[in-house]
Amino acid sequence: MKQISEFLEDFLPFWPELDPVQQKNLISSSSFRTFQEGTVLHRDSEDCTGLFLILDGQLRAYMVSENGKEITLYRLFNRDICLFSASCMMKDIQFDITIETERATQIIVIPTCTYQAIMNQSAMVSNYTNQLMASRFSDVMWLMEQILFKSFDKRLAAFLLEQSSIDDNDRILMTHEKIAGHLGTAREVVTRMLKYFQSEGAISLFRGGILIEDREKLLSFT
Amino acid sequence: MKQISEFLEDFLPFWPELDPVQQKNLISSSSFRTFQEGTVLHRDSEDCTGLFLILDGQLRAYMVSENGKEITLYRLFNRDICLFSASCMMKDIQFDITIETERATQIIVIPTCTYQAIMNQSAMVSNYTNQLMASRFSDVMWLMEQILFKSFDKRLAAFLLEQSSIDDNDRILMTHEKIAGHLGTAREVVTRMLKYFQSEGAISLFRGGILIEDREKLLSFT
Repeated sequence: MKQISEFLEDFLPFWPELDPVQQKNLISSSSFRTFQEGTVLHRDSEDCTGLFLILDGQLRAYMVSENGKEITLYRLFNRDICLFSASCMMKDIQFDITIETERATQIIVIPTCTYQAIMNQSAMVSNYTNQLMASRFSDVMWLMEQILFKSFDKRLAAFLLEQSSIDDNDRILMTHEKIAGHLGTAREVVTRMLKYFQSEGAISLFRGGILIEDREKLLSFT
Repeated sequence: MKQISEFLEDFLPFWPELDPVQQKNLISSSSFRTFQEGTVLHRDSEDCTGLFLILDGQLRAYMVSENGKEITLYRLFNRDICLFSASCMMKDIQFDITIETERATQIIVIPTCTYQAIMNQSAMVSNYTNQLMASRFSDVMWLMEQILFKSFDKRLAAFLLEQSSIDDNDRILMTHEKIAGHLGTAREVVTRMLKYFQSEGAISLFRGGILIEDREKLLSFT
């Protein structure tokens, strides 16, 4: 089993440039954590645990409206780093997101205060943090473009193809309600469009899921 | 007339912590610029002039779809700093925005390469850049919430009130087309809702603009 120090060295591009004290602080304060599927790791500004280095698993970051409507903002996979679980260290972040596991997930947590202390000392670490934020900002801008400028059939077809690729399976085990939550719309809207895709022969619907019948056809809707 | 050095000292919170060489580089490379209303200062990744310190004026940052549909992302006013006109220095920014003046605007430009060099040396400057990005990220997330979770009547009423407050005038001189561009929708949708607001006595419409007749009433739609 690899040590925490080996993972830190592997994940953090600035690791070799840190001084021995900084490296030691990171190693001694970081810890392995394992979570089951469907665990909320971060909710709004309630908690600020730290940076998550994803060793194995999948996280979903989403936004929730006052009346419970959801939209998926982005997902994180193996070797990604989750910055917004330490969002309190960036005082100009004035929005709330929720982060939960979409499958059993193993992470390393770097506590916010440890990371922040090093970020305040090192321009390189701060610039790296900047890069992480810029990547998530780009994800959200991409989503904004989709919502504003793409019609719903394109977004739904793209979502099904993406989901099938993440699961590495033509069968997508997901309710219409859940898909609606990912795409920030109502269940009825999803059901209507799925039925249309089915009538076109691109997919078939079964209880609790969707089967991609004709990938090329589905692709043609995107 | 104030010198560039005085403005830099005034705008940049990290100024006193810079060493004399860094300060000298910033002063000698920065310049005053004046632009007329409606000038495009930054378009997509075509140019990367530098950070803009807004001495007097108003900028609009917006996104444009392939077929020319627009949406306003945020606006910047006196004493704001425009970071995305130097977006090339953040290599993980993978989206294009356009920035234009909404009135005659005077700025100081800090060239990208000068700023970037200092950011790479100083954790404080890098952390400050982080804060600027976090503020713009928060603006975009706020907009996303509005688009996803608020109905169009609320968004349009809020836009009219905001615009009236920016112009400090009950008369808003703006076409329906232009409002549609700000809100990322079609002109017909704007016209329909404005007529509804008019029928409720909140506003009246005249050629080339909108007059707020009953601010309380308009506020009740938000």
